[in-house]
Amino acid sequence: MNYLIDTVKSVAALYGFEQYDGPVVEPLELYVGKTSKEILEEQAFTLKDRNDQALMLRPEITPSLARMVAAKAQELTFPIRYFNYGLRYRYEAPQKGRNREFYQYDFDIIGSDSLLADIELLSVAVEILKELGGTQDTFVVYINSRSEMNAFFASIGLREDQYRPVLQAIDKRDKVDDEVFINLLVKCGLTTDQTREITQLLAEPDDYKKNFEPIMQLAQAYGIQDYIQVNPMITRGLDYYTGFVFEAKSKIGLTRSLLGGGRYDNLVASFGARPLSGVGFATSDTVLEEFVKDINKVPDLQTTQAPVLVTVFDQSLQKLSIETAALLRRAGIKTELYMNMDTLQKQLKYADKKNIPWVLIIGPEEAKNQNVVLKNMPASSQQICILEDAVGIIKNS
Amino acid sequence: MNYLIDTVKSVAALYGFEQYDGPVVEPLELYVGKTSKEILEEQAFTLKDRNDQALMLRPEITPSLARMVAAKAQELTFPIRYFNYGLRYRYEAPQKGRNREFYQYDFDIIGSDSLLADIELLSVAVEILKELGGTQDTFVVYINSRSEMNAFFASIGLREDQYRPVLQAIDKRDKVDDEVFINLLVKCGLTTDQTREITQLLAEPDDYKKNFEPIMQLAQAYGIQDYIQVNPMITRGLDYYTGFVFEAKSKIGLTRSLLGGGRYDNLVASFGARPLSGVGFATSDTVLEEFVKDINKVPDLQTTQAPVLVTVFDQSLQKLSIETAALLRRAGIKTELYMNMDTLQKQLKYADKKNIPWVLIIGPEEAKNQNVVLKNMPASSQQICILEDAVGIIKNS
Repeated sequence: MNYLIDTVKSVAALYGFEQYDGPVVEPLELYVGKTSKEILEEQAFTLKDRNDQALMLRPEITPSLARMVAAKAQELTFPIRYFNYGLRYRYEAPQKGRNREFYQYDFDIIGSDSLLADIELLSVAVEILKELGGTQDTFVVYINSRSEMNAFFASIGLREDQYRPVLQAIDKRDKVDDEVFINLLVKCGLTTDQTREITQLLAEPDDYKKNFEPIMQLAQAYGIQDYIQVNPMITRGLDYYTGFVFEAKSKIGLTRSLLGGGRYDNLVASFGARPLSGVGFATSDTVLEEFVKDINKVPDLQTTQAPVLVTVFDQSLQKLSIETAALLRRAGIKTELYMNMDTLQKQLKYADKKNIPWVLIIGPEEAKNQNVVLKNMPASSQQICILEDAVGIIKNS
Repeated sequence: MNYLIDTVKSVAALYGFEQYDGPVVEPLELYVGKTSKEILEEQAFTLKDRNDQALMLRPEITPSLARMVAAKAQELTFPIRYFNYGLRYRYEAPQKGRNREFYQYDFDIIGSDSLLADIELLSVAVEILKELGGTQDTFVVYINSRSEMNAFFASIGLREDQYRPVLQAIDKRDKVDDEVFINLLVKCGLTTDQTREITQLLAEPDDYKKNFEPIMQLAQAYGIQDYIQVNPMITRGLDYYTGFVFEAKSKIGLTRSLLGGGRYDNLVASFGARPLSGVGFATSDTVLEEFVKDINKVPDLQTTQAPVLVTVFDQSLQKLSIETAALLRRAGIKTELYMNMDTLQKQLKYADKKNIPWVLIIGPEEAKNQNVVLKNMPASSQQICILEDAVGIIKNS
């Protein structure tokens, strides 16, 4: 988890994003009409406080962010670039890349309706997946636009109230077969012609793709064009998206999307501020972990464990061992002091089991001669030296 | 928060502690008979899942740790040194140094009943407060032992069932006046003589302190003796403590303890493992933040903000600005690209408001001559140079 956090944070910093956080337990009403119906009705963890107020464990952070930004809209310098790392809760069936309690990363730019904001964010998304070891062969970022889709719906004669149900049907396209999909469209009240137009759009989107030439040109300037594809099947589930939407998919392994986001024009204003267009995306530690495993890029992580164990010979020499450990720590060396009164053999076994490479032994001889035995466990070798030299050897190893 | 986390983590590493985490939402029964009555009955945030199981937002992590350690007792190499950083929930009245939702740091050593484990942990506690800028003048760590207190109770003829209520009364000693305190003791069934013995112990603990000579000698070897004081009034609230207990107090400002902990001999065994004695302490971001403020040691924190803003002259030069930002980022420089189509004046104003020191301008002249204008905002100066030189100047600033 720390490796993922550190990687994501370093990309965030490169793009000038600042970290923020908000409460994990929020009033339930914060999400009503904001997040998706599915989250509110099927995946919510709710509780009541001692004043009978309905609370919810946050399923996503964008509503909290919008509320906070609305409250500080007078003081903030827009556009803002914020990111969050924190807990989210959704009552879904646990499976690969999905837990009920998980940590999510959110990136948002608020206060710009420019394509440049969309592409900055896309670039952050691509950069994170690349930093984790992803390549053109292992992931793709699909982009689409709800407003372009709506324009297409209008061009084939759909009524406005049909737009959202049709988008939701398309969102399910790759989970159902052709017949079920057509039935979903028919249920939205579409004519046979309209249904055909839509299935054709999804099957052969070449004409539709031309709408995305401006952003694809920007993608080229960013050097990320090879990771981006227009895909009219991507509509995203959250209610508040108004235009540009995108999601990244692994090309191997995981079917769940690696990250997803979009533009929300009305969310901040809904908390009483002036209209401030936002664009954001989220990813989670669970999907990123699966992705890194799938592409076989789990790094050889440096353990946080100490490289040296200071043994304790007996009660009478305990003080000397403590002082030695204190000196090592003051020299910046991560150090374990053996805490139980055990035989030296047992202490060495402990170091061996925990893969601690260096062991410092101070027995009666060493105490008398003011030196130490420095044992290298992997090499099964040892030397007698003064403590200062041992510090140097461990530091340079 | 990141400053506190980083500081605590660096001390944890020096002492060989490894980070772990567990669920934040736990079954309610995990805490029954383990944590304090106060937490369970007055401060619990509880909810039910869709199978009607009672859940609780974790008020502390030690029971989760004990359960996890019990489950892995066969595989782990003891003693273990673990630390956690994560959310906790307690329904208390919010005040200075106390929120209902807060992040706590927990340090535990499990599998050693040695005094060395107690003193290692004390040393971690002292080191954290020192790293944050604390001194002998600003904090003290009080130590005591429930078993030594019990031995004293036995010596003055208390019945075993009186030990706990009397410890709880003593825990409240510094919050009530003499009369109320004596009444509390009388309510525990103490005789006038016993009550006098106890008030005398608390007022003049010199004899009692002799019981702590072994650990005070170790404290000397650690060089932390000046931060440690025996104090029979410290008994700690959690039910599972069995012996050594301690807490740190600020000498200025905050009255709430800075950290607290103790030894728990039976907790791991209560989850079905063999007896494994543990000792641990916890502190929180809220108290540490108040402490750092009280002692006037809030550091001059490096902002995570980018040091350079790349402006966008107009649509036709947008691509060049994007490529410039991409190059800066590849050079490891945190970079903001201005995203809206605004006048240069407005873009400079943005940099000024956000205290971004460097602004890179690429106008038509610069595009033609393949150079950039590098503006230093605090100095109100600017120079024309090639991009590579600008990179060098920003990097070295």
